[in-house]
Amino acid sequence: MKILHQENFNLTEYLGENKKLINSALEKYLEIRYPNTIWEAMRYTTLLDGKRIRPVLCLESARACSGNIEYVIPTACAIEMIHAQSLIHDDLPCMDNDDLRRGKPTNHKVFGESIAVLAGDGLLSYAPQVIIQNTPKEVDNKILLQVVEELLTVSGPFGLVGGQLVDIESENKEIDLATFNYIHTHKTGKLFSFALRSGALLAKATESQLNTLTEYAKLIGYAFQIADDILDITGTKESLGKTPGKDLLAKKNTHPSIYGLQESINEVDRLCSLAQQIISENNLNTPALIAIAGSIVQKVRK
Amino acid sequence: MKILHQENFNLTEYLGENKKLINSALEKYLEIRYPNTIWEAMRYTTLLDGKRIRPVLCLESARACSGNIEYVIPTACAIEMIHAQSLIHDDLPCMDNDDLRRGKPTNHKVFGESIAVLAGDGLLSYAPQVIIQNTPKEVDNKILLQVVEELLTVSGPFGLVGGQLVDIESENKEIDLATFNYIHTHKTGKLFSFALRSGALLAKATESQLNTLTEYAKLIGYAFQIADDILDITGTKESLGKTPGKDLLAKKNTHPSIYGLQESINEVDRLCSLAQQIISENNLNTPALIAIAGSIVQKVRK
Repeated sequence: MKILHQENFNLTEYLGENKKLINSALEKYLEIRYPNTIWEAMRYTTLLDGKRIRPVLCLESARACSGNIEYVIPTACAIEMIHAQSLIHDDLPCMDNDDLRRGKPTNHKVFGESIAVLAGDGLLSYAPQVIIQNTPKEVDNKILLQVVEELLTVSGPFGLVGGQLVDIESENKEIDLATFNYIHTHKTGKLFSFALRSGALLAKATESQLNTLTEYAKLIGYAFQIADDILDITGTKESLGKTPGKDLLAKKNTHPSIYGLQESINEVDRLCSLAQQIISENNLNTPALIAIAGSIVQKVRK
Repeated sequence: MKILHQENFNLTEYLGENKKLINSALEKYLEIRYPNTIWEAMRYTTLLDGKRIRPVLCLESARACSGNIEYVIPTACAIEMIHAQSLIHDDLPCMDNDDLRRGKPTNHKVFGESIAVLAGDGLLSYAPQVIIQNTPKEVDNKILLQVVEELLTVSGPFGLVGGQLVDIESENKEIDLATFNYIHTHKTGKLFSFALRSGALLAKATESQLNTLTEYAKLIGYAFQIADDILDITGTKESLGKTPGKDLLAKKNTHPSIYGLQESINEVDRLCSLAQQIISENNLNTPALIAIAGSIVQKVRK
């Protein structure tokens, strides 16, 4: 399939500007208060250098629906906090036992195990609280409740927690395709979907816009996860910022371990091309979403 | 001070009936779904036999303000889930490392450490979700948002997580009174306060009723924590359902370790008597709240 290129769009610049916006809001929401250690530990992983792709997708979804960016910043930050929370707890010695994340020691390596557990717990409660406390009063309470409820669905047993549980129970086992898809959808897909859905909801998107953006989210969320699994095989410690080959060692079921490397690269191509097509065909004016889908393909082709 | 007795009120019967109401709602909210293990682990600790004192206080607070009990049941259950969450994570090997809770093996002893972490995470997200999904539509969205936000405050870094962090950092150290009070308030007091406040808020209480019930909550929450610390010294494994003497071994700062046993018993007396007085003087028709305060005193006098 043909991957579209956005000739007059500078993705690097776009991502840099949006990342700055997100980081400055995260800095504010995560300012150090008493008891300092909990805020330092919550900040540490959330503010590790990264692309902030999930919050950026949330902002862009609101822009695509002509929404006010001020309305979505708290939600975009909450998404990054939930992502950080899942990293902190997944990296714990009793889980995946990882020492390195985004090129830095993992949370429990810096703060110790008990504080890492509490930092994750803190982010789980604080993320939805940030949305309720900081979303401008102009947003309908009904929409706000829906956004908070969808975030809780994604962070809890119907989302990340459920996905991580099935992932743990599946290690060293042959699993069927339904189980494999469940893990992918719940560990990655749902947070991507929420990023785009919440941006659209807060921008009072039409039903058709909401559906288009949800569909786009599912496709690139899946592509993103497969790309991650591919890079675990082909990447280096330096390029990844984490230890590569961990999936193989843990005998995790990944797309490349089931379908082979080339088939996985083809699948990323197919998913991202479809995602671009959906945006183009539905007349959403958002070169960024087209370019982001294209960049996932580039990452694995290199 | 004089402790009031409610001549025509059977507290045991009252607690039994309310516990039944709460347990049957908890059973419903925590029905086993895929992936089964996460729901089994979340259910296990939440449904361990116990008095359900926090949710009962929530129901009673609504009754004291002539509220509809149906409106508060989801919130009352969410309170018990957050309480269970804090027990699961506090009992982890990297925290207090407890094997016994309510007379049964702790969560990680039954399900393993990784699933116990996830069960706690699951409850943290699911508890506020239960409130949003199950509170009858008649309740104003504004009140619902306030209740959810107050619960998140209590469960996160401004509440239980903050309290547990300071508790951990204070072990084996001499601490000042402000730190000691911070731990008590955040590990116990705030969830008690939320129980009574949320019941009142959902019952559309007057400002004065809300203040009275908040004040009552602070007093008995503190009394409850001191009583717990006293029983850690005077109780048996059988009567407590957990290992006694743990605080002494861990050199935890408790009310009796700072003030001595007799002074702690006197303080429970004073706090509960004051709590009773506040309810009586403000003409809230709730013999149950008077009797509950009295029962805390009885527990430590025995």
